Amino acid sequence: MIRFAPMTADLAKRATGRLAALAACSRPGPGVTRLPFTSEHRTALDLLTAQMKAAGLDVHIDAAGTLVGRLEGPPGAPTLLMGSHQDSVREGGAYDGIMGVVLPILALETLRDEGIQLPFAVEILAFADEEGVRFPTALIGSRALAGTVDPAVLDMTAADGVTLRDAMTGFGLEPDAIPDLARDPAGVLGFLETHIEQGPVLEAADVPLGVVTAICGIERHPVVLTGETGHAGTLPMEMRRDALVGAAALITEVDRLARATPGLIGTVGTIDVAPGAVNAVPRQVRTMIELRAPDDAVREAAGARLTAIAGNIAEARGLVLDMQRSYRQPATTCDPRLSDKLAAAVATVTGEDAPRLASGATHDAAAMADLCPVAMLFLRCKDGVSHRPEEFASAQDMALAVAVITAFLGSL
Amino acid sequence: MIRFAPMTADLAKRATGRLAALAACSRPGPGVTRLPFTSEHRTALDLLTAQMKAAGLDVHIDAAGTLVGRLEGPPGAPTLLMGSHQDSVREGGAYDGIMGVVLPILALETLRDEGIQLPFAVEILAFADEEGVRFPTALIGSRALAGTVDPAVLDMTAADGVTLRDAMTGFGLEPDAIPDLARDPAGVLGFLETHIEQGPVLEAADVPLGVVTAICGIERHPVVLTGETGHAGTLPMEMRRDALVGAAALITEVDRLARATPGLIGTVGTIDVAPGAVNAVPRQVRTMIELRAPDDAVREAAGARLTAIAGNIAEARGLVLDMQRSYRQPATTCDPRLSDKLAAAVATVTGEDAPRLASGATHDAAAMADLCPVAMLFLRCKDGVSHRPEEFASAQDMALAVAVITAFLGSL
Repeated sequence: MIRFAPMTADLAKRATGRLAALAACSRPGPGVTRLPFTSEHRTALDLLTAQMKAAGLDVHIDAAGTLVGRLEGPPGAPTLLMGSHQDSVREGGAYDGIMGVVLPILALETLRDEGIQLPFAVEILAFADEEGVRFPTALIGSRALAGTVDPAVLDMTAADGVTLRDAMTGFGLEPDAIPDLARDPAGVLGFLETHIEQGPVLEAADVPLGVVTAICGIERHPVVLTGETGHAGTLPMEMRRDALVGAAALITEVDRLARATPGLIGTVGTIDVAPGAVNAVPRQVRTMIELRAPDDAVREAAGARLTAIAGNIAEARGLVLDMQRSYRQPATTCDPRLSDKLAAAVATVTGEDAPRLASGATHDAAAMADLCPVAMLFLRCKDGVSHRPEEFASAQDMALAVAVITAFLGSL
Repeated sequence: MIRFAPMTADLAKRATGRLAALAACSRPGPGVTRLPFTSEHRTALDLLTAQMKAAGLDVHIDAAGTLVGRLEGPPGAPTLLMGSHQDSVREGGAYDGIMGVVLPILALETLRDEGIQLPFAVEILAFADEEGVRFPTALIGSRALAGTVDPAVLDMTAADGVTLRDAMTGFGLEPDAIPDLARDPAGVLGFLETHIEQGPVLEAADVPLGVVTAICGIERHPVVLTGETGHAGTLPMEMRRDALVGAAALITEVDRLARATPGLIGTVGTIDVAPGAVNAVPRQVRTMIELRAPDDAVREAAGARLTAIAGNIAEARGLVLDMQRSYRQPATTCDPRLSDKLAAAVATVTGEDAPRLASGATHDAAAMADLCPVAMLFLRCKDGVSHRPEEFASAQDMALAVAVITAFLGSL
């Protein structure tokens, strides 16, 4: 393994300064709002292009809007891909996504400053759209490289009526050329994504960095429970078919099952009651169960179990149940070999073993896994917060991450 | 007891026809919308005035907007009051309230047709506002007679910005003379209110009429449970402080306690979750517990018990609880002597004992109880429905009710 200079205060300062400049590429308002194929996106790409060129990379924007900075390797050598997404949610933070573009650039700068040449090519990728905030689809840049873009998504429409195709064309792209972007797996070593954890696990463990084992699979079940309304004063308890009482039992069971099942996460985040009056027995409740797990079998079993439980609750309370699985995304297992090398780099840089943890959130790495082995490096974030203006990763943790990426590159 | 002629098809026809004519005094739209101090109110009072005059009553509108039709009695004799409210909810039905004005008029017509003179005076009252839909107050007509109107309510404002005082003045009333309306209890025999049940009890028992034992007391507790939000994928179950999971436990306990406590009714009809996203752990839930019981001690004990339960739930789940009783209205016990006479009249007319039942809804009789003994006659209504266009009481049941009121008057 090649040894590198220890991380410096200068590296921390450069990471912080670049992320601050990129955070300014935002719509006015709290935090960062940088949606794909907007003028803020353009300004951010201009800044990243300058950073990439300063690191000695050849830069272009591909047909899906991904900014690609390439460091050429020996003739015929394969390519290692690194990166993340440039976009934010509305009123989001300055780190989610974009930090995973900035830190690998700094790692390549470090290598260049050390005069080290890698035995493979490297490309740094800034994907246009991972959050899926503007259009009802996401991951178009990473899916394009994996060759998994459904052409139908180009006709999807944003809230302002613009289609994805028109937004991309207006940005100077050629969306019809997306199929040509698919990479040959034989030429790709793997994909490393660096990202804030978006959760509290690393902070609670008091460690700066973690290595991701898997990106959780997700399934969602819209639930409609229908009973009968009536005057809250005059409908006797024993004659009630109260949809909210049924929903309350179901919410309790989702929480109970998730707490009792290792790796399973279960959330009910929305609920709507009709008629929704203080003095009216609830007739109908619409809610949504979301389940996540790094193990698809665990998630599938939980979905089936909760569907059965919901049926029992409805039957016991005289309610009509409409529950179906509307969305399913399998888990992505990170590549053991790349992950072990990443963990070894963390141990080298920090002197401590890296915690391994699953990612509950989805990332570009999930789409890239269709192309090549993937690995993910997580940075702790303050209070586990993401997607909010308060989102924060420390300069010191970012400098450590750059050192880890540098060591990881040297170990391949 | 004086015997009267049996109810006739003619009586049923007159009740139905008059209620249909009054239902037409409505804003356009589904069902009946007749708010107080509007042109629809005026048209309804014109129809009721004609009906009262045809029954031989002296008619005037008092300072609170109550239409009063008086049948004089022997000199110095006390007065029996009968009636209900003229107003409806928005898109309500044709029976709630107004039927309790129309049927006593028909009873007095029956007495006149039979040539029977009562040993007391009778007044039929059509109160302006019981539903409290237009202004954030209600029961002004009945409270005026009881001398319990808080003058401050006159400054309350409707959604359109009109004060109650201005609405009443525009209707030709003198709201400042309301204090003069208070009756001397010594001159009042009692108050009989006839009303649809607004619940399914009589229909389920297959009987047309019931006698009310008490009007339930009500208390309401706004509840705010506050925890912490987080990404639904990345916040581990064991670190969650999920406000909706806490609220679900509380809703379950409200239902459980009400089902286990005779006479107690408990309802949670509204719930709001923040941030309210499929993939965000709920930070805060706002909901409302409503409790009703004919026995104040039962209701008070339930309110205290649920406050303690909510505290335990919040503590167990790391939530902050804000729960307070925002509203309390004691129960009104119907007068046993009047109620027994009313039950006897039901038995005479129908040949069967009248069921006794509590009223979960509030009525003008609750305000009138501050003035005099009160009794209430309930008519079954189709499917227990009220406050909706489908609200329905049959012509035959109404004719039976007229016969019962007639018999009741004769028995006093």
